[in-house]
Amino acid sequence: MITPKTLSGFKDRLPKEAMAKQTVLEKLARVFKSFGFVPIETPHLEYAHILTQEEGDIQKEIYLFKDHGKREVGLRFDQTIPLARFIAQHHHALGLPFKRYAIGNVFRGERAQRGRYREFTQCDFDFIGSHSLLCDSEVIQVIISSLKALDLEEFCVWINHRKILNGLCAHFGLHSDEEVITFLRIVDKLGKIGQQGVLLELGVHFSQDFKPLLEILNTKQQEDSAEFFKSVAHLKELHPLVKEGLEELEALFSLLLSLEIDPDHFKVDFSIARGLGYYTGIIYETTLNQLTSLGSVCSGGRYDNLARSFSPQNLPGVGASIGLDRLLVALEELELVENKSTSARVLVVCMQAEYFAYASQIAQKFRQSEINTELYPEIEKLKKPFSYANHRGHEFVVVLGEEEVKKESLTLKNMTTGVQFNHLSFLRALSMVSE
Amino acid sequence: MITPKTLSGFKDRLPKEAMAKQTVLEKLARVFKSFGFVPIETPHLEYAHILTQEEGDIQKEIYLFKDHGKREVGLRFDQTIPLARFIAQHHHALGLPFKRYAIGNVFRGERAQRGRYREFTQCDFDFIGSHSLLCDSEVIQVIISSLKALDLEEFCVWINHRKILNGLCAHFGLHSDEEVITFLRIVDKLGKIGQQGVLLELGVHFSQDFKPLLEILNTKQQEDSAEFFKSVAHLKELHPLVKEGLEELEALFSLLLSLEIDPDHFKVDFSIARGLGYYTGIIYETTLNQLTSLGSVCSGGRYDNLARSFSPQNLPGVGASIGLDRLLVALEELELVENKSTSARVLVVCMQAEYFAYASQIAQKFRQSEINTELYPEIEKLKKPFSYANHRGHEFVVVLGEEEVKKESLTLKNMTTGVQFNHLSFLRALSMVSE
Repeated sequence: MITPKTLSGFKDRLPKEAMAKQTVLEKLARVFKSFGFVPIETPHLEYAHILTQEEGDIQKEIYLFKDHGKREVGLRFDQTIPLARFIAQHHHALGLPFKRYAIGNVFRGERAQRGRYREFTQCDFDFIGSHSLLCDSEVIQVIISSLKALDLEEFCVWINHRKILNGLCAHFGLHSDEEVITFLRIVDKLGKIGQQGVLLELGVHFSQDFKPLLEILNTKQQEDSAEFFKSVAHLKELHPLVKEGLEELEALFSLLLSLEIDPDHFKVDFSIARGLGYYTGIIYETTLNQLTSLGSVCSGGRYDNLARSFSPQNLPGVGASIGLDRLLVALEELELVENKSTSARVLVVCMQAEYFAYASQIAQKFRQSEINTELYPEIEKLKKPFSYANHRGHEFVVVLGEEEVKKESLTLKNMTTGVQFNHLSFLRALSMVSE
Repeated sequence: MITPKTLSGFKDRLPKEAMAKQTVLEKLARVFKSFGFVPIETPHLEYAHILTQEEGDIQKEIYLFKDHGKREVGLRFDQTIPLARFIAQHHHALGLPFKRYAIGNVFRGERAQRGRYREFTQCDFDFIGSHSLLCDSEVIQVIISSLKALDLEEFCVWINHRKILNGLCAHFGLHSDEEVITFLRIVDKLGKIGQQGVLLELGVHFSQDFKPLLEILNTKQQEDSAEFFKSVAHLKELHPLVKEGLEELEALFSLLLSLEIDPDHFKVDFSIARGLGYYTGIIYETTLNQLTSLGSVCSGGRYDNLARSFSPQNLPGVGASIGLDRLLVALEELELVENKSTSARVLVVCMQAEYFAYASQIAQKFRQSEINTELYPEIEKLKKPFSYANHRGHEFVVVLGEEEVKKESLTLKNMTTGVQFNHLSFLRALSMVSE
């Protein structure tokens, strides 16, 4: 006998959790599609050298092995490298601009942590092949529409521009890419370790006094955006890149405001850095007001050249990624997920095996009226199927005994109110279930 | 520069194909849920010893390797072993009966063949924990409802019973399990190599004359089921197991007929063997009348004990699996898939960048009326966005030029008819798009 065990660092999802996740994914896909994003599919396995091309901490977490043909292969650890590979490989067939979304699992052999698993789901959407500000605006719109589709109301997309950061860095004496990257990596920890911690860590690498710069980076928009942009207009004089960046943000905000999006849902935050060299334009992170400690549930931004390792063609774009597992934790915390283990609203129960045909007919009639209906397959004391329905969350139980079958009727119990109606006609029962 | 290449034996799905697949999966999931089947999720990776417990040709096709903690792990090659592991591990939390469906990818390092890939999608549904005939009937009902949901009309679930096969085998002198399995494996090829081929191959293993047995196994129901069962009633005398099997089939047919399912959709075929020891009761395969050469698109049956390697608890059940890739080939062949590369019905195009805000508003209004709408992000000669829409399959293009913006109107072109309407109000355009 083998002990049944999930692989260390991995998890099963039981029906309640799996259904909650599916509902979220369906809602997200609907939003992505409403903006014309289309799905694509790439394999979970890629040639190892495609995955291992970039430097970084993730590299040692990739699952690498040999396949049956002795090829070096690996499980994807994100959906961005596969997208870059895909676009470079198929761009003639795809045409540009190209808007894709991808909902898929990725694998990282991280050290196991509470609530972090080695296989997790990413929802990415990218708008590729255009420099237009419209794409930046649309990706932010998609983030906001996605969270609203999940009944989240209090959240904010915090927006910054790499040009502002680069301009400020240059003004304060950081010139090489390497210096800027080291600086931004440390600044990225502002939320975690605070200004004192950041200054301390900066001191290890640099001799400059970064206090005035950090004060600027600590600027988060509180007031309305027109006032905010007025209050930071003087920064434009520090460096031409700051000017460009601020003006692009102003144009973005005016586009978003013209769409009558609640201005509380998007604000400027000069501390958003989004780590490394990948992003080159407008960047953002999204926090939930009631759960800021959770960190960003959706981050993204504009990049200059997605497929630079695979193609000489310049492919600019904007994209964002929803961390689904984190989002599910938040929805659970905020009690925004359904607490059910059944996909059926009605459970049909028979008192005798000879009523199974009648029961199947009744169940099928409910289904034909778009009511998901389950048939209890055993003949048992009613206590058992009722407890089955209670545990799983069926809203109604239909009971079929001798009387019901004889009168071509049914008995219906509303599991929420506990009220039972005897000997109803099917149509009467249907109208009660549909109410 | 790295050459962008999909791993050998694997495939990408471009938007048209990915969307067709998703549409099919959504329809299938809707059917599964309408019967109360619930989704679960298990990892793509399992401990190797969980996957390698059974004998068979698949074993050498499993992707096995070591993870970062030096654990022997493997990619799942089906969803049945993970289900057995899952049920044994969680059955206290799940309770019985338990009905799960799972749509997921599995991996097999098979020799590459045309149209067969090393990663493919399986749609499984299983009704676990009950001996009731209702479950057998329901799984067949789900198969029929699934295919109908995909607009397939001409198909048949060919049904047999392992007891009939076992009884016939016993009557014709095959007694040991091993003999029966060898015999059934060869008989399973009846469709492929014909009666002569089967007899030839049987001659290698056995000395008996199997011609009379093969004649019985070649019996496929042609007439209506009442007549059919009458015509084969004499077989009951051959062996008590044949009698039991036939009587259970009769009961199953009477249940299915009471549901007013088209009797052309389910018939008896004594040659259906479903290979090996796994199945113990009613078994079936499903063929499409216009594409019988494709083989079965959905097969399944009843088994005695799902989790026998993992748990002392007896877990009987019925399940079936839809071979999604094969089904997609069929739907393509029968022209039952949409031929589109876009998720949007409307494409909105601007003549000037300063109209982007107005265009975004128009697009958002369409979306609010449940019309998926894409915004073209570039300012170009109209030929380009029109060709973009033509290639991808947008049904309507909205053009916004100076006149349109000034009059708060829009110009709408129906891409199917080619007819263009100038300067419509949004509501007028919406009603034309919604028609």
